[in-house]
Amino acid sequence: MPQDKQTNRRIVLASRPHGAPTEANFRLETGHVPTPSAGQILLRTVWLSLDPYMRGRMSEGPSYVPPVAINEVMGAGTVAIVERSDHPDYAEGDWVVSNSGWQDFALSDGKDLFKLSGPVLKHPSWALGMLGMPGFTAYMGLLDIGQPQPGETVVVAAATGAVGSIVGQIAKLKGCYVVGIAGGADKCRYAEESLGFDRCLDHRAGDFAESLKRHCPEGIDVYFESVGGKVFSAVLPLMNTKGRIPVCGLIADYNSTEPAVGPNQLPQFQGTILRKRLRVQGFIITQDYGHRFGEFFSQMSQWVAEDRFVFREDSVEGLDHAPETFIGMLEGKNFGKVLIRVAGDQP
Amino acid sequence: MPQDKQTNRRIVLASRPHGAPTEANFRLETGHVPTPSAGQILLRTVWLSLDPYMRGRMSEGPSYVPPVAINEVMGAGTVAIVERSDHPDYAEGDWVVSNSGWQDFALSDGKDLFKLSGPVLKHPSWALGMLGMPGFTAYMGLLDIGQPQPGETVVVAAATGAVGSIVGQIAKLKGCYVVGIAGGADKCRYAEESLGFDRCLDHRAGDFAESLKRHCPEGIDVYFESVGGKVFSAVLPLMNTKGRIPVCGLIADYNSTEPAVGPNQLPQFQGTILRKRLRVQGFIITQDYGHRFGEFFSQMSQWVAEDRFVFREDSVEGLDHAPETFIGMLEGKNFGKVLIRVAGDQP
Repeated sequence: MPQDKQTNRRIVLASRPHGAPTEANFRLETGHVPTPSAGQILLRTVWLSLDPYMRGRMSEGPSYVPPVAINEVMGAGTVAIVERSDHPDYAEGDWVVSNSGWQDFALSDGKDLFKLSGPVLKHPSWALGMLGMPGFTAYMGLLDIGQPQPGETVVVAAATGAVGSIVGQIAKLKGCYVVGIAGGADKCRYAEESLGFDRCLDHRAGDFAESLKRHCPEGIDVYFESVGGKVFSAVLPLMNTKGRIPVCGLIADYNSTEPAVGPNQLPQFQGTILRKRLRVQGFIITQDYGHRFGEFFSQMSQWVAEDRFVFREDSVEGLDHAPETFIGMLEGKNFGKVLIRVAGDQP
Repeated sequence: MPQDKQTNRRIVLASRPHGAPTEANFRLETGHVPTPSAGQILLRTVWLSLDPYMRGRMSEGPSYVPPVAINEVMGAGTVAIVERSDHPDYAEGDWVVSNSGWQDFALSDGKDLFKLSGPVLKHPSWALGMLGMPGFTAYMGLLDIGQPQPGETVVVAAATGAVGSIVGQIAKLKGCYVVGIAGGADKCRYAEESLGFDRCLDHRAGDFAESLKRHCPEGIDVYFESVGGKVFSAVLPLMNTKGRIPVCGLIADYNSTEPAVGPNQLPQFQGTILRKRLRVQGFIITQDYGHRFGEFFSQMSQWVAEDRFVFREDSVEGLDHAPETFIGMLEGKNFGKVLIRVAGDQP
């Protein structure tokens, strides 16, 4: 079912998942296209961004973002086109980044929009990737919390994902030795050959922990954490004194439903924090760094214009495929930044 | 056996402890008083500081300080008197802070000494307490890592100990609501009545976790960690968004010999770091902040001169009591900063 201009398709949260989400947790609804009131803008979604943090919003429990209500449309960043505008700053045909969610049409008062112009219009979906939230997360987490120095060893989990691939490439620009961690030989080859990481290791390999140790002969100075679980357990003993661990996600734990079985690794973690004098810091990009978006966007746009980055997108056609694509992403089935191409428009 | 000027008593590490140290891990030796060579200073110990970090130095495994070798004298900070000097900067009779260890006499080349002068000479053992390493640990950990703001809630473990008592008093000076945690009703009463904490809770009480929650109605912004174990488990769920956890010690774990049994609390800790965007940072005062000792000493000396602080010492007479006193301290038997009065000298 492709997008048409008479119908608004919306994917709503039908029920809260227990453990891994299933398609039954979502429901596709159709309805009328909303009509903008005074001062409002009608947006039509072209690209929809799917990101791991959305799993947290599906649960009721405390997460770092408020939960989506049952029967509410799933929230998401999008690239959209202004269909109609009663707002002085936006005109029909403008391309914007918005929070219009898993649906074809949405209204905005303009406050949450970011108008696309210049080079990013050559490739508008980049505004949801290396020039958007994932790139911003990589940039601030690595540079502000991780503070990598030339010659240091930076290890990045989910190395071929939207955030991890940018983390590693910025770390290379900063003169670091970069070891990625990814799931499967294809992703690892891509990280080494296309992204330019010094190494990329497969966390599914039986000798993963030994391999990580062998390939980090001088220990680890910065570990960019987005995964948790056994990847973290392999990284922790290799952390160097004064190491930094920015934590932007823990995808391995998002679907867990039971208390984790022992042994209790907490004392080991605390002991390592103390002995190695580590700094471990969680961050939520919009809340902690929203005021520095301009700084990021300006630097990153320049790097992108200079062709310094490789950025792989894993896009799927059609809004109705969003649930299965999202579920697959949580299982690591994606290869690159996950996007839904909701409409075929080009700037 | 009191100090005499013909004999050097030395307490050496006889064997490495498995779990909690026992007196059999130490041995008292006697020998000749060493003779200073050109440029050297002969020190005579008056006050010996006993501190939890010394437990780490008794083990071979990685700690944050190098281990003491078997048959080597136990290391420690001391307040000592210069007995003889062939060094231009030190004269017989000077009082100094030194690293002369668990013994009566030691040689120094002067590089590791800090000469005492002015008001601290009224009470030289303070140079091992609020004006020394414990005070410095409290000051930098709380102010540089914890960054407490007026009105915030600061929770401090080991609240009546050398470090914790200063942490809480500085936090009060900074306008915070301060909740201490200590072992036993006497210590708690002292923290509230003498140290001026808003509350102090007994971690041995059956309802400790509930009580902590009740007495931190606005959550916890800064938790000064020196304990670990079940105190930490009660604190973690109460941490506020953007909370800070300086980690200067983990005394509850120092004597553990077995991997901790489950459930595995690591995912919960990581998840809290992420969701609450916590900053957790270990530090070793001398290594991380050695260059800022002057700043601390000047500010703290002023506060001490203004009588802003209460500082309780728990001192025991006689070098030969150092092992049993140290063992008791690891069990929380002390009440205040633990010192051995090795000699009766007064400035």
